[in-house]
Order: sequence, then C-alpha cells, then structure tokens
Amino acid sequence: MKTIKVGILGLGTVGSGVYELLRKNGDHISTKSGVRIIIEKTADTDVQRKAALGIPDGVFTTAASDVLENPDIDVVVELIGGTTIAKELTVQAIRNGKHIVTANKALLATHGREIFEEVLKSKVELGYEASVGGGIPIIKTIREALIGNTIQKIVAILNGTTNFILTSMTREGLDFRAALEKAQELGFAEADPTLDVSGGDARHKITILSSLAFSSYIDHDRVYVEGIEHISERDMEYADELGFVLKLLAIAEKTEQGVLVRVHPALVSGDDPLAAISWEDNAVMVYSDFLGKSMYYGKGAGAYPTASAIVADIADIAHKVKSDGEYDRYSYVFNRNLPQLPFESSVSRYYLRFHVLDRPGILSKIAGILGKNQISIASVIQKETEEEHEYVPLVMLTHSARESNMKKAVSEINVLDELEGAGVILRVIDEDHS
Amino acid sequence: MKTIKVGILGLGTVGSGVYELLRKNGDHISTKSGVRIIIEKTADTDVQRKAALGIPDGVFTTAASDVLENPDIDVVVELIGGTTIAKELTVQAIRNGKHIVTANKALLATHGREIFEEVLKSKVELGYEASVGGGIPIIKTIREALIGNTIQKIVAILNGTTNFILTSMTREGLDFRAALEKAQELGFAEADPTLDVSGGDARHKITILSSLAFSSYIDHDRVYVEGIEHISERDMEYADELGFVLKLLAIAEKTEQGVLVRVHPALVSGDDPLAAISWEDNAVMVYSDFLGKSMYYGKGAGAYPTASAIVADIADIAHKVKSDGEYDRYSYVFNRNLPQLPFESSVSRYYLRFHVLDRPGILSKIAGILGKNQISIASVIQKETEEEHEYVPLVMLTHSARESNMKKAVSEINVLDELEGAGVILRVIDEDHS
Repeated sequence: MKTIKVGILGLGTVGSGVYELLRKNGDHISTKSGVRIIIEKTADTDVQRKAALGIPDGVFTTAASDVLENPDIDVVVELIGGTTIAKELTVQAIRNGKHIVTANKALLATHGREIFEEVLKSKVELGYEASVGGGIPIIKTIREALIGNTIQKIVAILNGTTNFILTSMTREGLDFRAALEKAQELGFAEADPTLDVSGGDARHKITILSSLAFSSYIDHDRVYVEGIEHISERDMEYADELGFVLKLLAIAEKTEQGVLVRVHPALVSGDDPLAAISWEDNAVMVYSDFLGKSMYYGKGAGAYPTASAIVADIADIAHKVKSDGEYDRYSYVFNRNLPQLPFESSVSRYYLRFHVLDRPGILSKIAGILGKNQISIASVIQKETEEEHEYVPLVMLTHSARESNMKKAVSEINVLDELEGAGVILRVIDEDHS
Repeated sequence: MKTIKVGILGLGTVGSGVYELLRKNGDHISTKSGVRIIIEKTADTDVQRKAALGIPDGVFTTAASDVLENPDIDVVVELIGGTTIAKELTVQAIRNGKHIVTANKALLATHGREIFEEVLKSKVELGYEASVGGGIPIIKTIREALIGNTIQKIVAILNGTTNFILTSMTREGLDFRAALEKAQELGFAEADPTLDVSGGDARHKITILSSLAFSSYIDHDRVYVEGIEHISERDMEYADELGFVLKLLAIAEKTEQGVLVRVHPALVSGDDPLAAISWEDNAVMVYSDFLGKSMYYGKGAGAYPTASAIVADIADIAHKVKSDGEYDRYSYVFNRNLPQLPFESSVSRYYLRFHVLDRPGILSKIAGILGKNQISIASVIQKETEEEHEYVPLVMLTHSARESNMKKAVSEINVLDELEGAGVILRVIDEDHS
C-alpha cells in the first residue's frame, strides 16, 4: 500500500484533533483510499503534549527543524498559526520539497501571493481546505467540483463566533454585550474577541476564497470590512418584522468591471437557506453559470471538523504523489489580475433606521434627500409615538442603490434638526442576492 | 498541455448541456486545471442533433461503436439512460479500457455491483457524480473530502419533482393533484410522474449514496420506499401548526446492527436547514464522526447542473491519468457486507392522525393501545367539533417508537368503532434527526 509520511508542526487544539483522527480512523482511511498516512514526527514547544496524546518516543520533538529537515517526511502540516514564524517555517518546508497542509487563514490572506509563488517554483502541493470554513469542503468544491463553471458570486457566513452572537440576539433578544458574554462562556468566542466581531476573521477567509474562485489575487487590505459591534436588538426586531434575519456576510462578486469583496452585517430574507444557518455554523453559497446556486454548510471551526479538512488534504496529496516521486499539482491560477473595485461602487438594497421627531413633513424631507441621490423607497415602518417620547423610529427599505449615493444621502439626513443621533445603514441581501 | 478525449453517448438534454458547457468554458477549464478536454465523438440516433448543436463533421455519429471502439477516446460519457442498452454499452466500454462517466442512477442502483466489479477488473475509473443530486458534488465530498470520517447517517432531499410538489402544497395550499399538475406545466414533473412521486427515483439515489458512504453494497430492492401520493393538505396544515415541514426524505443510517436505508415522507422541524430546501432544489445532510453535521445543497436535476457534475468527473479523470497511461484509481470498497436492516426495525418519532367520533373516552382508548405497544404520546391536538360533523381529527406526536410496534398499534386502532377510515402515519425527523 502507498504510504505518506507526515510531520505536524503545532499540537494545539487542531494538531491534537489530527492526531486523534488518524489514530481512530487511520485503518478505515487506508481501506477506503488505498493510502496509509503515517505520522512520522510531531513538534511542539510544550513537552507535556507528548504524554497527553500518548505520542510514542521518537515521534515527538520540540524542534521544528526535526520535521523540516527530516528526509522521510513528505507532508508538513503547519498548525502554529500567526504570520511570522509560521511563514518562515512554511517557506522553508516548501523549499525543502515538502508538501504543505495548513489551516492558517491569516497567513494565506496576507501573504498568499508570496506563499503560492514559492509553491509554483517547487514541485509541491499546498492544501489549505482547513483555512476557510473549517471542515466544510469549499476549497475542494470550488477547485474541482465546480471546475466546469465560471463563478459569479459567493455569499457566505464564515465566522462562527459572530453567527453565534447574532443568533443569540435574534432568538433570545440579548443585546450584543450579553450575547458576546454567552458565546465566551460557551467557548464560541475568545477572551479577546476582536478579530471575530470586527469581521477580520471572515475577511481573511473571503480573501482566500475569492482569490481561488476568480483566479485572481485579492488584496486583503482592500476588502471592505464592518463588524457587528454596532448591531442593536432594535434593528434585529425590525428586521424580523420585515421578514429578514441579520447575518454577518462575506460577499465576493465579479462584474464586468472587476471584483468586489466585502464583509458586513446584512439583512437576509427569511426564506433564504442562509437564514437557516444558526449558532456557530458556517455556510458558503456559490453562484456559478452552470451549476447555478449551490450551498455548503457545516462546522466552521473546532478541533475535529478542522482535522477532517486537514486529513482530506493529506489523503489528496498522497493520492497524487506518483511512484517516481513526481507530482501532478493543481495549477494555482491567480493570474487574471482582475481590478478590485471599491466598496463605494457596490449596489444593493438598504435598510435604514432614523430616530426622528414625530412631526408632519419629516418623512417627505428624508424621502426628498434620498430621491435627490437616486434612491427610491420600497417600504416604510413608522412606529406610533409613545406618549413620553417625542422621537420615534422611522425604518425604511430602499430599492437597489449605490453605496456611495447612500453614504452621501445619509450624511445629508444626519444633519437634519428633526433627527436624534445618526441613521443606521444596513445592506439587504435579497433571495437572489441581487 | 495534457489532453483527454471524450466520446458522448446520447445527446439529449444532459448530453447537449455537456457539449454547451465545454464549448463555453473549455478554455477556462484548461487554464484552471491544466487539462484540455476534447470532444472526439458524439453519438445519437437522432441526426438532427448534429445541426442543432452545431457539431462539426466527423464529431457526430449514429453508431455507438464509433465511440466504444475508437482507440483515441479515453473517456466515454454514458447519457442514454435505462438499464438495458446503457448497461451493455457501459460494460463494453469498460472492457475496451475506457473510463466511464455516467448520470445513470437506475443502472447503478440496480446493477451497481456488476458494473463496479467490471471496473475493478480493469484499469479504468467510473465517475458517477451526476447520478445523485444533479450538480451537487456529494459523491466527491463523501469519497474525498470526508475520507477521514466514519459516516453515521445521511438524510437527504434527492428528488426535485416531489420537493416541488410538497413546497406547492405547503406554501400555496394546493392538493397533491393540483400541485402535480403545476409541476408538470412548469417542467418539473414528467408526463408520467410515477418514478418520482412514488419515491423510486430517490430510492435509486440513496442506494448509490449509502453504498459509497458505508462501503457496502446496498440492495436496492430491500430499500423501503413510500411516495407522496397519499399526502393530504390537511396533514400539511397540522404539520405547520406543530412547527414542522413535510419533505420526502431519503435516509440511510448505520447502527451496530447494520444499515437501514429508506425513502418516505417525513415531518422535519421548521428550524432544520433541510426545512429551508424548497421547490425543485435538493440537499444532502451528512452526519460523520469528525466533521459532524454538514449539508450540500443545489440543483438536483437539469441539463446545466448535471453537465457541471459530468465535466468535473472528466476533469478529475484527466488529472489522474499519468503520462505512462497508468491510472491511480479510487479504490471502490463496497466489501464490508453490512447487514441491511428491515424498515420495521427503524425507530423514530411519529405523527399520527385519526378521524374519530367526538365522544368521551376515545383518547384514552387510543392512548391505551399505543401504550400497550410501548409508544408514548408527546402531544395531542384535538380539533373542536364543527356542529355538522360528529367526527373530528385527532392529531398526535409520539416519542421515539419502533416501526413494527407502531404498525401493530395503528392496525389495532384502525378497527375501533369510533374511527372513520384508517389512521395516517408519518415519521418525524428531529432537529438532530434521531
């Protein structure tokens, strides 16, 4: 039977998951795939992990070089994380002729071009299924299953922490702070949740995914990002009244002008399959010319789902290594150089909420400003005055409008005397995501 | 660039879709995959298709043998359908050393063992992504992406016609007959809809899928099947009241005793992602030990989605053909010989509806019979008597029970004097599909 020897860098949550998976299902994998995956060496600075996982003598080391320079090792699994040491070790492994399997989204989103160029210079494969959507096989699907398609758009829920928080807010009426605390207690949010709640993690993932889908390097720093920290229970309630659910979406679309990639909260129609993706789950909806709309759903994080993706990458590499050591690699084509469009050029429907004095004429004043900026109103909810307050919420859905026009209109509305505070702007993603 | 030469048998809807796909996206596929797919020959008995598709001279034939015996052809795409001629041609192609790509679910469900044994004797690959779930990459996902997992259960919507009919019934209050007619008008049901509405098509597909998932040949004839012809609007309404949606599900699960595979209508919890799969769409939910719950959603039929799956199979085969002509095939392991359990041994919750005389004591009588058969009631809806009728509907949800016990209990209830007609039995599939 064909064998492939693996070295694991980093035995944290995911590294331990990979070790456990291969111990439990290794024989089954061999039977099904005809490949035996052997863990030749594991490296971690914490020696206690050797005993915790029951790793045999000789298979554990504290020195990464014992993995990188080991001539027996075919595949290096990089699970250190971060963009400094992980990058050095990855590049070194590639230069040493090792195939790489990685879950490191930050590294690929910010240094992808450099890493892929190293890969292209060598005869190795880079497996990065685990870097996007945890165990969901979205990289393989786009690269292989959708090979006959031109991909037009991706609309995805790529961060479990924020989806958990938004689901708590929607279903349990919690405010952002309380929902975040609940997520932290249950282990779905980290002590410092900034990278997740700011949309930064989803931005890493959509950068990687859209580069692959559109065969063009996407500049991570030019991907628009807006987090969920400012989402209020009030907007959750109005969204619900209007038949929508609030989600943090990562969206990438290709138009004739170029590619537009963005991460922001959005109202999703209640009967859209994405609306049913709850709690810590992730999902990726892909629009392509022949397959049409397809969606891939599952656990976007966690030791076991991520290990599932990593082992699939290793088995794929094993399958493609030929007896003479040659390797028939997927060609990484990121060479289309599509222009990356600014968020201001995006077009969508909008949800607007203003807090206005309950006086005649205010609606027509706001409608006037919107109209002047080529924005037409689709529907309005105006709440009745509660006797003690003179300000009332005014909620609107617009027809499709351009982001730059919307920003201009709302900045004009925000300075009206009849307004209290600034207006809330949220994008609406329709059934057909237009 | 590596090239692969394809012969297509059958230029009906799907065959034409494949031809169009390769014409439109062929260059793009070459750039992305490093493989050029060349249609060397197409065969159809209808010569008019040559002109309709603009097929060049020399690329069209009316004789299948021009494809099967053509030494230049690497891959034969079988799109004839049926289980007689298609089987002969498939076996002949395999024996001639051609790789096979097929969308023929009836053939693989009923003669899979024979076909796969032919494949195992030769050095060819059999690509059958298009046979289950149309363009949804579920075969690839189970075979490759979930290679590290042991699959425990599959719960799937695999037939677009029935899902369309059930969605019409749920959303528009149509009865079965009217919903079927609507589906026929819109092209989502055939003139003879028997194979679809009886559950037969879904049964073909779940047979193929579960054989792969459990590495064991599933006997198609022993897969339980129940169609949707008997579903009434009334049960749709009660299901809705109880927070469920009615779907035709194909379910395959592995227990310690063996494998249980079945197709029947079922109540799905409204917040289950499967409940959001509407109209002609398909979806497959897979439960596995490391990835957990994952779902794959998309178009389960149609020329273009099916062409997308077929071209992915061709590209995969092309990718794995080595320069020396050797082929590193996936090992088809159907050799576990797991016992196939009878439907009567299945366990689930149940929805029951009886039409009973509105008399004191009838509920306790029915509850008594259920209890005697180890079935306990979870909740009851008893409708108020409308003055003109003396019979009222009695709707119940039970806790988990065994199918054989349920059948026995309901047959005892059906002979009660207080009953009008026979009781309706539907299975309930919970959030966690237990």
